[in-house]
Amino acid sequence: MLKNDLLLQALKGQPTERTPVWMMRQAGRFLPEYRAIRSRYDFLTMVKTPEIAAEVTIQPVDILGVDAAILFSDILVVPEAMGMPLSMNEETGPSLGKGLSSAGDIEALEVSGIERRLGYVLEAVHLTKQRLEGRVPLIGFSATPWTLMAYMVEGNAKKGFPKAKSLLYGDPGLSRRLLEKLTDAVCTYLEAKVQAGVDAIQLFDTWSETLSKDAFLAFDLPYVYEVIRRLKERLGGRVPIVWFFKGCASSLEEITNVPVDGVSLDWTLDLGWAIPNIPKRLAIQGNLDPCVLLANKGAIQKEAERILAKVNNRPGYVFNLGHGVLPQTPVDNARFLISFVKEATQRHP
Amino acid sequence: MLKNDLLLQALKGQPTERTPVWMMRQAGRFLPEYRAIRSRYDFLTMVKTPEIAAEVTIQPVDILGVDAAILFSDILVVPEAMGMPLSMNEETGPSLGKGLSSAGDIEALEVSGIERRLGYVLEAVHLTKQRLEGRVPLIGFSATPWTLMAYMVEGNAKKGFPKAKSLLYGDPGLSRRLLEKLTDAVCTYLEAKVQAGVDAIQLFDTWSETLSKDAFLAFDLPYVYEVIRRLKERLGGRVPIVWFFKGCASSLEEITNVPVDGVSLDWTLDLGWAIPNIPKRLAIQGNLDPCVLLANKGAIQKEAERILAKVNNRPGYVFNLGHGVLPQTPVDNARFLISFVKEATQRHP
Repeated sequence: MLKNDLLLQALKGQPTERTPVWMMRQAGRFLPEYRAIRSRYDFLTMVKTPEIAAEVTIQPVDILGVDAAILFSDILVVPEAMGMPLSMNEETGPSLGKGLSSAGDIEALEVSGIERRLGYVLEAVHLTKQRLEGRVPLIGFSATPWTLMAYMVEGNAKKGFPKAKSLLYGDPGLSRRLLEKLTDAVCTYLEAKVQAGVDAIQLFDTWSETLSKDAFLAFDLPYVYEVIRRLKERLGGRVPIVWFFKGCASSLEEITNVPVDGVSLDWTLDLGWAIPNIPKRLAIQGNLDPCVLLANKGAIQKEAERILAKVNNRPGYVFNLGHGVLPQTPVDNARFLISFVKEATQRHP
Repeated sequence: MLKNDLLLQALKGQPTERTPVWMMRQAGRFLPEYRAIRSRYDFLTMVKTPEIAAEVTIQPVDILGVDAAILFSDILVVPEAMGMPLSMNEETGPSLGKGLSSAGDIEALEVSGIERRLGYVLEAVHLTKQRLEGRVPLIGFSATPWTLMAYMVEGNAKKGFPKAKSLLYGDPGLSRRLLEKLTDAVCTYLEAKVQAGVDAIQLFDTWSETLSKDAFLAFDLPYVYEVIRRLKERLGGRVPIVWFFKGCASSLEEITNVPVDGVSLDWTLDLGWAIPNIPKRLAIQGNLDPCVLLANKGAIQKEAERILAKVNNRPGYVFNLGHGVLPQTPVDNARFLISFVKEATQRHP
């Protein structure tokens, strides 16, 4: 039993005693307690060692007082489990080697048994749930098929993903074959995570921002739709699913027709503009600009208040950033934000 | 007298015998004829040598048959003329040193006399106009105050511009002081360019995409508005002004209240969605995804047709990419696009 299930209530659209709050990328990167461990192990060792992953996942719950834990992991463990070589370069970020270049490369990707090859993630879920002792819900995540495809074809996070997008435009059939395999892989992976104990799912679709509306509707949204449909079919309404995307303002109407429980919005999508166009059945999460946390407490309070004013007590709202917390964020500023949101939204009976 | 003034007609919202077409970043980067010159001179020497700048500006008119020339230059010549050290690193792109860090750094920026320090640009305009012999209009450009500020505070194109945005949030007063100086500099620079002979102006606001709506309305749009207001006051309606911005979908209504002649849209803003919300008095430019040109001719034709179908013969339309042409673009693909648009939009009497 969860002692604090504010997140789950909000994702069901229920009114809550106060607004739940957590931060994307809260586990890792900016906490000194994380960096102390990171100085002893490389990134992928941390991801693949359940003891360490659990510890890092719980750090922000202890240190910041957030209302949810999100499993410390990386979206690229999925392509690795499908057979691609994953490495982490301190300077240039994660790499999947040369990337996928041919139909043969795509055929060689292995979906079957992926949940066994990602057993270390499932073990980290078990361990984290034990150690959390029901304090807050645990979120499990995956990237969406398109966001995975972008990395996998490019081999890294090259600006604009020209190679991946050239494949979308130049060979839509082969692109769909890859997206279908990724849909299967993501579904299997997330279902296993739920069986292992996560309380909610977040889909990360950072590279939706690189797509035109036509490309988004052809190559991104349908596969997100299918992931959600299958998970709902297999799991019922057991865990809420949230879709984080970037950009996509022209597609807001189409997005809200997907049977997802909540949408997580980046900071460039104004809540005052978006909320009237988002049906009440959908929860909304977001969307403070992560750069606000680099300024000062006055600015943090002002910008958080702007967002809360736009939300205007709409049920089904989760306070969060519009993207991941930046590595250079002062911990004191993050702690101030969390406390401020909790106090400012407390309902007094 | 211009022999081909289709661009200017379209920017005035007049019906044209066919749709004018040009490509952002058409001068430089992807043409072998450009790279042949580039192998002999460094980038900034090319920018600062009017003979070379004129030659490179005219190359795409000859090679691709575009309906406009855009002066080969760089947006960062303005900060350099205000006193910042500009250098070009082959790997990491342009640099303005450590960037602006204090009120003193901002006070030290010099606006007065900027048109003299940018005399080489004005000379390049003269020379280009002579050599074009009225074949097509010549576009002059500047970045907007916010886009310049982003580079100048950061010192380079660091993803998300965290230092610049931290200044916006943390010290709005000092940010406004900088933006006001940049407004003065941009106005003086563009007025001099018009006096030197450019036929149209484009404002580049690439880093609008980093801003929330509130930050955009506070720190970006008002300064663009002021640049346009002053230029219209000083120059009358002599040259049309186009504003290229990225993102900003939530602010489309506010953008269309600026007294600009045209808006240039990136490829993530769907034309079918945007056009009903853009008043007829505004010309529209854009917005093919530059990655389409990396695919094949079939894909290029299909995607260009999609755009033309959405435009549906609206007067006041200029075909263009949604951002700059990519360096790895095959020249044949670019040439195919230009020819295709010209033929597909030709009105037969």
